[in-house]
Amino acid sequence: MTVMLSACALAAAVRSGDLTPAEVAARCAAAINAREKEIRAFTALNLEAMQAGAQRAGLAATPLAGLPVGVKDVYDTVDFPTTYGSRIYAHHRPAADAAVVRMIARAGGLVPGKTTTTEFAFTAPATTRNPHRTGHTPGGSSSGSAAAVAAGMLPLAIGSQTAGSVIRPASFCGVTGFKPSFKLIPMLGSRTFSWSLDTLGLFAAGVEDVAFGASAITGRPLTVDPTARLPRLAVIRTPRASSASPDADAALTTAARAAEKGRATVREITLPPEVESADDAHAIVQGYEAALALADEWDRHRGQLSPQLVAYLEQATTVTPEAYDAARRVTRLARNAFADLVEGFDAVLTYSAPGEAPEGLASTGSSIFNRLWTLLGAPCVNVAGLTGASGLPIGVQIVGRFGRDRAALTAAAFVEKAIRAA
Amino acid sequence: MTVMLSACALAAAVRSGDLTPAEVAARCAAAINAREKEIRAFTALNLEAMQAGAQRAGLAATPLAGLPVGVKDVYDTVDFPTTYGSRIYAHHRPAADAAVVRMIARAGGLVPGKTTTTEFAFTAPATTRNPHRTGHTPGGSSSGSAAAVAAGMLPLAIGSQTAGSVIRPASFCGVTGFKPSFKLIPMLGSRTFSWSLDTLGLFAAGVEDVAFGASAITGRPLTVDPTARLPRLAVIRTPRASSASPDADAALTTAARAAEKGRATVREITLPPEVESADDAHAIVQGYEAALALADEWDRHRGQLSPQLVAYLEQATTVTPEAYDAARRVTRLARNAFADLVEGFDAVLTYSAPGEAPEGLASTGSSIFNRLWTLLGAPCVNVAGLTGASGLPIGVQIVGRFGRDRAALTAAAFVEKAIRAA
Repeated sequence: MTVMLSACALAAAVRSGDLTPAEVAARCAAAINAREKEIRAFTALNLEAMQAGAQRAGLAATPLAGLPVGVKDVYDTVDFPTTYGSRIYAHHRPAADAAVVRMIARAGGLVPGKTTTTEFAFTAPATTRNPHRTGHTPGGSSSGSAAAVAAGMLPLAIGSQTAGSVIRPASFCGVTGFKPSFKLIPMLGSRTFSWSLDTLGLFAAGVEDVAFGASAITGRPLTVDPTARLPRLAVIRTPRASSASPDADAALTTAARAAEKGRATVREITLPPEVESADDAHAIVQGYEAALALADEWDRHRGQLSPQLVAYLEQATTVTPEAYDAARRVTRLARNAFADLVEGFDAVLTYSAPGEAPEGLASTGSSIFNRLWTLLGAPCVNVAGLTGASGLPIGVQIVGRFGRDRAALTAAAFVEKAIRAA
Repeated sequence: MTVMLSACALAAAVRSGDLTPAEVAARCAAAINAREKEIRAFTALNLEAMQAGAQRAGLAATPLAGLPVGVKDVYDTVDFPTTYGSRIYAHHRPAADAAVVRMIARAGGLVPGKTTTTEFAFTAPATTRNPHRTGHTPGGSSSGSAAAVAAGMLPLAIGSQTAGSVIRPASFCGVTGFKPSFKLIPMLGSRTFSWSLDTLGLFAAGVEDVAFGASAITGRPLTVDPTARLPRLAVIRTPRASSASPDADAALTTAARAAEKGRATVREITLPPEVESADDAHAIVQGYEAALALADEWDRHRGQLSPQLVAYLEQATTVTPEAYDAARRVTRLARNAFADLVEGFDAVLTYSAPGEAPEGLASTGSSIFNRLWTLLGAPCVNVAGLTGASGLPIGVQIVGRFGRDRAALTAAAFVEKAIRAA
């Protein structure tokens, strides 16, 4: 299997002088040239510009040390076409970079190109293939970012999650996905699907790599805390556990046992009704907001939307302001109840996805184990390292408390290490 | 003085058949042709398209009954250039309409053009003049929307408020300004200055007019409640009362006495320290977010920013994530404390602005009596009807509880009527 590029290892090598940013860029360019034709992770690429940028003096001393960072094609870029995965925007060239694109540039990252997204980050798939088995979906909507990291083409990539669009593709592709607390990283200059849910996320090889990337881009102390005590983990299977395949269930059990073996405190708990019932609120909040977020395309370009998006928006436009307000109240209560529930734990350990990446490219899989946590705004990490019966990756998910992103990443790093040691 | 156009009266006349939408459009076009050269409220106009649109069958039966609605030039429009008040975007033409522009169209409103904004809705003024005395500022940042309504050119216009950009120009121009609860109306497709503060607001002649417009555009029940009991009003002068001119203080006293005479319960209260201290948090939240919201322009087009914006952003980029997070915590505590404080009242009655519109067009005035309420996300209404010593308008402000927009509008309508009766 492909060797993934560790962002931490590459940055350390650049800092120590073992590698130059130009050599890192050349390595990524070579991997992209070798794999992209098969994986189809990018909608736009400019490897020459990346390699030219890597020559800039002082780059090695920047927070990102000149590492290449892929950007999902829902974020506006001046230097690349930005299609949002839609035919309507096939030739769209934004007037300004998204905030995160400027944050990457200011932190010394190099953007080689745009990674694929499903149509408007909803369900109509991109052309991207799962690097572990190309007849299988990489998951979505951040398909290209997950696949590019999995295929060893990039050490870091940016995605977004409205239901399960970071954690699911990370699980399917066997990479680390990190969906921070809601609004930790600004979505400005991204294509909105649901303004209460859309959350900027990152992909990297391992937990330390994704934490390094998030720290470097935001200037916040998010790297794994080496002084943290052994974590107290709450295993949650949720009433939706019947949707988990035996593979997913086995992965969760394996991870929980490995954590216990590593001397973590592990206790299985159930969600109280106030939290569980919020799962239904996700669809209402997303529907109401998507109908407004796509109002222009619905009114002017309906014929260029996919049939599944048209069908979705037809339903979505029937959500009333009253139903929306009620769903937001349910959400507020669920956030408080979840905070109370996990008082006394460092993180929740739960499913990332229903199983291995499904065969075929027509569907990107289910977000059933993701949407509740997105609605709660909680930080989520897909921890890779386990596989299902057919040998494809299958992740487990760490969910933290809102605003405690570093604690979530630290717990995820513990579980990752425990899985490797088991 | 100019007679303003009442949205309610015009819509009623259209519904009853006394006026056609085409006649309303013609009346607005005539007023714009007569006054615009002097007032300079618009950055783009297409009166022919508005009048052609007014011929559409069925328009009279729509929620907005074909009324013209001005749109501040921070909202994206496909049909008009969108400059955000910046030279950088002098020739910018967005690919999609802002959500509110589609909401207006779906509700049967006609957009005749874009109204002026200060540069990126910050402080560098537009060319607009106060219709009451053209050597005075109309206020900002929603300068054109306030002035267009005040000059009788439009019955409704859309603005936005990050500190005081709806309530202040409404006070200076003698119109009703309504800043709803945060996120009541989506900001999608607007130029962001601060994503935690930017709030879409409306201007109209009177309180019932603005409530009609908000109801029609959102599909929410926001019209003034005729069955409401006599309001219980909390008068708040705030520790910043020393910034209020004798005119502003007299207006607040007059409004409070008029409300008492109208049999409202009126009681003066003071803000607790948790709420008062949040006033300082506004600058920190706005600064941190503006530095990211304008990252592209700062990095690429700094020479085309105004000196005051450059000076502001130089400061703003020094706000740390830690200071920002602390300011957001202060904000959360203040929101809860404010909700507790006004338990037992229907609304707060306070200053809208420090006084009459200042002379000169170089400054749009101070937001000292607005920014705290914006930070709290509370619904605010400028109630017009009073004047200062020099005869210029001076408003008073109704502040409601978060999410209780109809109650705030209803209290504002009561105060407006009481002022007229006094």
